[in-house]
Amino acid sequence: MIDIAFPSWPDVAPKLISVAAGRAFADTVIRQGKWVNVHTREILPDHDIAIVAGRIAYVGPDASYCTGPETEVIEANGRFMIPGLCDAHMHIESGMLTPAEFARAVIPHGTTSMFTDPHEIANVLGLDGVRYMHDEALMQPVNIFTQMPSCAPSAPGLETTGYEISPEDVAEAMSWPGIIGLGEMMNFPGVANADPKMLAEIAATQRAGKTVGGHYASPDLGPDFAAYVAGGPADDHEGTCEADAIARVRQGMRSMMRLGSAWYDVETQITAVTEKGLDPRSFILCTDDCHSGTLVNDGHMNRVVRHAIACGCNPVVALQMATINTATHFGLERDIGSITPGRRADVILTSDLTELPIETVIARGQIVAESGSIKVDCPHLDWPDSARGTVHLGHELIAKDFEVAAPEGANGVTVNVIGMVENQAPTKALKADLPVRDGLVEGEGDTMQIALVERHQATGGVTNAFVSGFGYKGKMAMASTVAHDSHHMIVVGTDRDQMALAANRLAEVGGGVTLFRDGKELALVELPIAGLMSDQPATEVAAKAQALGEAMQACGCSLNNAYMQHSLLALVVIPELRISDLGLVDVRTFKKIPVIESIS
Amino acid sequence: MIDIAFPSWPDVAPKLISVAAGRAFADTVIRQGKWVNVHTREILPDHDIAIVAGRIAYVGPDASYCTGPETEVIEANGRFMIPGLCDAHMHIESGMLTPAEFARAVIPHGTTSMFTDPHEIANVLGLDGVRYMHDEALMQPVNIFTQMPSCAPSAPGLETTGYEISPEDVAEAMSWPGIIGLGEMMNFPGVANADPKMLAEIAATQRAGKTVGGHYASPDLGPDFAAYVAGGPADDHEGTCEADAIARVRQGMRSMMRLGSAWYDVETQITAVTEKGLDPRSFILCTDDCHSGTLVNDGHMNRVVRHAIACGCNPVVALQMATINTATHFGLERDIGSITPGRRADVILTSDLTELPIETVIARGQIVAESGSIKVDCPHLDWPDSARGTVHLGHELIAKDFEVAAPEGANGVTVNVIGMVENQAPTKALKADLPVRDGLVEGEGDTMQIALVERHQATGGVTNAFVSGFGYKGKMAMASTVAHDSHHMIVVGTDRDQMALAANRLAEVGGGVTLFRDGKELALVELPIAGLMSDQPATEVAAKAQALGEAMQACGCSLNNAYMQHSLLALVVIPELRISDLGLVDVRTFKKIPVIESIS
Repeated sequence: MIDIAFPSWPDVAPKLISVAAGRAFADTVIRQGKWVNVHTREILPDHDIAIVAGRIAYVGPDASYCTGPETEVIEANGRFMIPGLCDAHMHIESGMLTPAEFARAVIPHGTTSMFTDPHEIANVLGLDGVRYMHDEALMQPVNIFTQMPSCAPSAPGLETTGYEISPEDVAEAMSWPGIIGLGEMMNFPGVANADPKMLAEIAATQRAGKTVGGHYASPDLGPDFAAYVAGGPADDHEGTCEADAIARVRQGMRSMMRLGSAWYDVETQITAVTEKGLDPRSFILCTDDCHSGTLVNDGHMNRVVRHAIACGCNPVVALQMATINTATHFGLERDIGSITPGRRADVILTSDLTELPIETVIARGQIVAESGSIKVDCPHLDWPDSARGTVHLGHELIAKDFEVAAPEGANGVTVNVIGMVENQAPTKALKADLPVRDGLVEGEGDTMQIALVERHQATGGVTNAFVSGFGYKGKMAMASTVAHDSHHMIVVGTDRDQMALAANRLAEVGGGVTLFRDGKELALVELPIAGLMSDQPATEVAAKAQALGEAMQACGCSLNNAYMQHSLLALVVIPELRISDLGLVDVRTFKKIPVIESIS
Repeated sequence: MIDIAFPSWPDVAPKLISVAAGRAFADTVIRQGKWVNVHTREILPDHDIAIVAGRIAYVGPDASYCTGPETEVIEANGRFMIPGLCDAHMHIESGMLTPAEFARAVIPHGTTSMFTDPHEIANVLGLDGVRYMHDEALMQPVNIFTQMPSCAPSAPGLETTGYEISPEDVAEAMSWPGIIGLGEMMNFPGVANADPKMLAEIAATQRAGKTVGGHYASPDLGPDFAAYVAGGPADDHEGTCEADAIARVRQGMRSMMRLGSAWYDVETQITAVTEKGLDPRSFILCTDDCHSGTLVNDGHMNRVVRHAIACGCNPVVALQMATINTATHFGLERDIGSITPGRRADVILTSDLTELPIETVIARGQIVAESGSIKVDCPHLDWPDSARGTVHLGHELIAKDFEVAAPEGANGVTVNVIGMVENQAPTKALKADLPVRDGLVEGEGDTMQIALVERHQATGGVTNAFVSGFGYKGKMAMASTVAHDSHHMIVVGTDRDQMALAANRLAEVGGGVTLFRDGKELALVELPIAGLMSDQPATEVAAKAQALGEAMQACGCSLNNAYMQHSLLALVVIPELRISDLGLVDVRTFKKIPVIESIS
């Protein structure tokens, strides 16, 4: 295992003391900025910061006494000096990027600390996959802490993951240097029912003195919520309205409010602070999921803080929600989250506290980005072959694999259809009457075929069903190995030949997303690492993802987040109807249901 | 070692969940109170609290669904439900009480968590002494966490303690169940000078993930302060003015503001919050030192919170400073400090949030005090003989041991005199001309003899010098084995025969404080445990201490805190002049000086 732990405060205390006392010179001094103090909630003009060994030695009105001939001097010139931003909960895989390339994309936006839950790779590669992410995270010039995934599979008995995470895995991971806690405990019914496996994972985390991430995705604030809180999760990012945020904080959890590529939960919850006047210390900002396009075009945590300010939050309070509040939550307030002695020297220079232009980013005392450009290397892990070859089809697929046989003698059938809903993660359980031709059920209009192709154990299994809402026309198919949460392969198409082509193509490139029309590939995003991540930079991935979106539109799809909708169709924890390797699943009842309901 | 750890949240999570979910009944329900929520800073009427296994399972508008026939119901009747109060830094020995009797005294005042630094006993008995305190602490029905003492001796080279604390001792103690961090790092010049021993103690604490207590007793906020901050202490309770509090919090430390029996540092610092409007999260209340009389007559943390409110602090903010702020500081916010699920069920019922009458105290789900009366047993450790027989004089003392010989032929001399200052811990380095009779220097007027009698190694050593300020008249002497910080024996008297009587009397009773006049003992406080603590209840100790104070007054002393002044005369870390077993010490220069300056 790679263990590149950044030297701790006690490791370098003699150096820090010597500089602060004036007996030695600093490596770097940032001169004459406005010190945004997130402990006192003050802005203090005309302050200097002295840095040595990557940590802050001194903050005060005049660091000239520890500025020597070799000291690098950065002139703040009256700009605001704010702590590097922290993303309190996020999944790197959502950007289709490796930790290295994710870091490279977000450092220019001022993100210097991330709390990442490699839940997706855990489903594909188990504890090994978590370790690769953890190891590459520790190689970066910024702070990427890993939350040990808690729920693989997310829905035991309703899907088969590549690997399963056990309480023993969790206990083992708690000893790794970069593990900061348990990733979001999504199995909230399990916790409320005192499921021994879930409680064992929580206990292992609590006994290690680490933070248990929560995920309570229900509007019910009655006994089920109370039981979940009593189980131990310390935060939650699934709140969507003010009442959710208030309920969580009153109960002693921290409310993580997210603005991701497709999450908009800050504006609806931050009124708990801006209007209701609650103590802001328990409110935290995060992204949860960001696509590469968001990172390239819009930003990362700077976007979230800016948004919080635009929602009426005092800028320093908003910054607290992305710095010290986060650090305190994870037990790291003596290490990150403020510009004070002993902490990692993670500092942003910005000339405006509302628009928050990220002008200079300093991480661990080093300038890592300037005017939006990265100035530092983000090293890649040498990913092993086992992490790259993860698309295991039992055999080359043909159109026949996607056939849905009709009952003997039927001319038409009523089928259960996964009905997508624009801008929402939940689906509707619909029914449709479909024709039968040559003994096979055929899609019609906007009701087309969907298949879940098993790709972990090479079983050759294909689950076929029907979906509506994409609006595809012509002979086409789209396939993706990003298929939350077990990440088999989801193929949606109007034509079985195209479906086979798309599926085989992903096997060939080791995973990703592809779209075929009339036998031709219109777009491809290669995701060779676990079938989830590229190892290319965010700009290239974003460009390919954009081309994919355009190809989907060219085929007739007009959904806002069509790719995301596609990749969530196997998420058997969100109602109402989903597909898994085990069949069609009614998530309202957690039961499998047949594709063909009746002969019509 | 005694290890009575209270069951942790994961130990009892299944029970908590079952009660919260409504599948099992609570042990106890507190019905219909005003929930003082220290997370949100709200007061929420009409709430119930359900408790099981000593922890909170549910807080909400209606716990009737988890109230069964066996559930004990406590009617709050609309009173305020506030979290049990936390004392963030204190020395049990200051009350002259054992942990058990201290707990018994303060529980009726609503203190349910204490962060105690057994620094005094560490000087007498070393790590063993710390362990006895730690063990008795864990036996109590409330939460007494132990801070491992950091500085014994406080002033290396200037005094000889009974035992010394080493970095290895600190590292060992960090594995004990009740150790919460390092006790106040008083050697601030050592930290600022990167003393390897002090840094090793801090490092051992930080590496164990625990909190380093600070003690920066200087008004200098320049490089020495910066160097101390860079060394790692996480809090400080030595601030005395608003600027001190602000400086500490800006630098990422927590400001502990104290109201002890003789400390009045809340009113002068809390304006940082009440007037300057700083974020209150980093401000914490504590007592540091309380005499038994204060505990019996005035209160404990309830007195401090009440005082903070009287100083203009919002009551809920003041309560945060004695609950959640403290818990967060020590990494315990998921265990104590708020009335929320999972936490120890430490709850106070009070009908007024300003006057703060402590009507009912519940600790770990059990009623421990009602209307000022304790309702629970506070078990005593079976203290070993080694802890009880700690006054080792080399021989029975006689008047001759206290003689100060004049230089040959002198009729008068100029001596250095420890000059006490009313209401202040610092002394003045004075000079006085004294007569010589029969070759011996004799006290005159208010300048009388002081002696430091070695009592740890039975060396027979007596350091003789002179002190002024007590105002004693007639033939008397007062002796005490409470003699900060090395706790030898301090004897002050107008007559050498009385001094010998008093010293021998303390050897006879195993330590304490005594006052003799004209051959008769006017008052005695027996402190048989380490010569520091009684094992009697606070009321008895307070009565004896009061009798002692009256005896001092009867002998002509009119100082406000005469006993405390006496016991601090060997504190060789506070200017200007002190006495130690090694001689008379000028604390301004950290050098020994002669008693006789010159022949006059």
